[in-house]
Amino acid sequence: MNYHQLVEAIKAKKNFLCVGLDSDFEKIPKHLLQFDDPIFEFNKRIIDATKEHCVAYKPNTAFYESQGAKGWSSLQKTVDYIGSSHFIIADAKRGDIGNTAEQYAKAFFENMNCDAVTISPYMGRDAVLPFLKFKEKFAIVLALTSNESAKDFQFFGDGKTTLFEKVIQQSNHWGNEENIMFVVGATKPEYFKQIRAIAPHHFLLVPGVGTQGGSVADVCKFGLNKNVGLLINVSRQIIFASSGIDFDKQANAAAKQFAAEMKNYVT
Amino acid sequence: MNYHQLVEAIKAKKNFLCVGLDSDFEKIPKHLLQFDDPIFEFNKRIIDATKEHCVAYKPNTAFYESQGAKGWSSLQKTVDYIGSSHFIIADAKRGDIGNTAEQYAKAFFENMNCDAVTISPYMGRDAVLPFLKFKEKFAIVLALTSNESAKDFQFFGDGKTTLFEKVIQQSNHWGNEENIMFVVGATKPEYFKQIRAIAPHHFLLVPGVGTQGGSVADVCKFGLNKNVGLLINVSRQIIFASSGIDFDKQANAAAKQFAAEMKNYVT
Repeated sequence: MNYHQLVEAIKAKKNFLCVGLDSDFEKIPKHLLQFDDPIFEFNKRIIDATKEHCVAYKPNTAFYESQGAKGWSSLQKTVDYIGSSHFIIADAKRGDIGNTAEQYAKAFFENMNCDAVTISPYMGRDAVLPFLKFKEKFAIVLALTSNESAKDFQFFGDGKTTLFEKVIQQSNHWGNEENIMFVVGATKPEYFKQIRAIAPHHFLLVPGVGTQGGSVADVCKFGLNKNVGLLINVSRQIIFASSGIDFDKQANAAAKQFAAEMKNYVT
Repeated sequence: MNYHQLVEAIKAKKNFLCVGLDSDFEKIPKHLLQFDDPIFEFNKRIIDATKEHCVAYKPNTAFYESQGAKGWSSLQKTVDYIGSSHFIIADAKRGDIGNTAEQYAKAFFENMNCDAVTISPYMGRDAVLPFLKFKEKFAIVLALTSNESAKDFQFFGDGKTTLFEKVIQQSNHWGNEENIMFVVGATKPEYFKQIRAIAPHHFLLVPGVGTQGGSVADVCKFGLNKNVGLLINVSRQIIFASSGIDFDKQANAAAKQFAAEMKNYVT
């Protein structure tokens, strides 16, 4: 799914919700453990229950890697199951260089049909450019993250520019809104205005709404652009809305509620 | 293998060589493709051929992930095969937070018996602390990397301190030389002096010797400390010394040569 198709999907569905598939083996409902691949069974039901109310899915690779080779297989099956109807983000926060980064790009863009991979920019452009070689795919670069210790380094600067601003400015030299997005946490809504000043056209992937305390309204206030330009991610508050046998029904209700809130912002 | 055991191994073997298992499926000798798991067969022979001349192995996870679930299995078998005789670094450059980082720590420290994982510090302490909860394991934090575009952000600063120095300074508040190491590239030997001023006791994992152009002598000049404090990694120049049926013999010769050069620096 390319930039224009994503914008179309958002306008058609009137929401910009991304469901985070942080499918922690320890937290999935116990009645699914009887299946051969409980994580995939969980994801399948969550996808069926939420697909009408979201435009994107974001599996975080950590929850699959922690299950070894079997987890990697659950991830592959999940991406295949989602198919091409939704934008798929491998939340991998990879950040390596040259031929190594190419291997990661191959893993997520060729072997799996993901549309985007999240990238840690610490090593500079060498960590980003290999992902941009793939047509109609995205590198989603960490800029200002939602966690408390984002301030350890992301606000470090020379008095004029902070690191997260420099990351966005530099990324603008490497690609554009059709192959780069940025991660900006919902827990720091006061920064959306200055980020939109240097990245007016890019999509921003926004974690931190829900359990972490950010709100859709605060993010939209300065985050929206003419093509919406936001993918707001919610993980736990949707996928673990219930741990009972009605988990998919509760996930559906939670996703529906977030989507309904977003409807007001899609024109 | 903990800090003291690593120092002992270095003193006993009189080298501080780490062999990088960047076992690219496209580059391994063709005669190994007949095996069910060519990457593991390749690694097994490389390990047998080099174990006498090195103290550590560093598989880069990208080359395994690019082979999907099967690659993850090759990685698991490789780590098992190395066992406890050598220090094992999962070069994963992970960098996520909280319960997600814990999943990565579990993947590499519990499911696999790695001794260390490389970590990208962009998200701050939240990305590092979960790894430090594991006794006698290491987070190896990216500080000054060997690639050209390290300069994009790592030298950014306020006129007094650069980002890579700030990463080291902050890390010193989170742990010590018994659970943290730093990545410092051999291609920037002029910075080892100032890095040793702020991290006198830590081990430095040093990529960039060999194909990338760095030298053992340059790194040792200012990088050595009283416990050696260096793990110099060489990947391609050892594991791909030959692509013929004699690849393991050539890998042995290359490792032996690097180890011999290091002997002069271990007292």
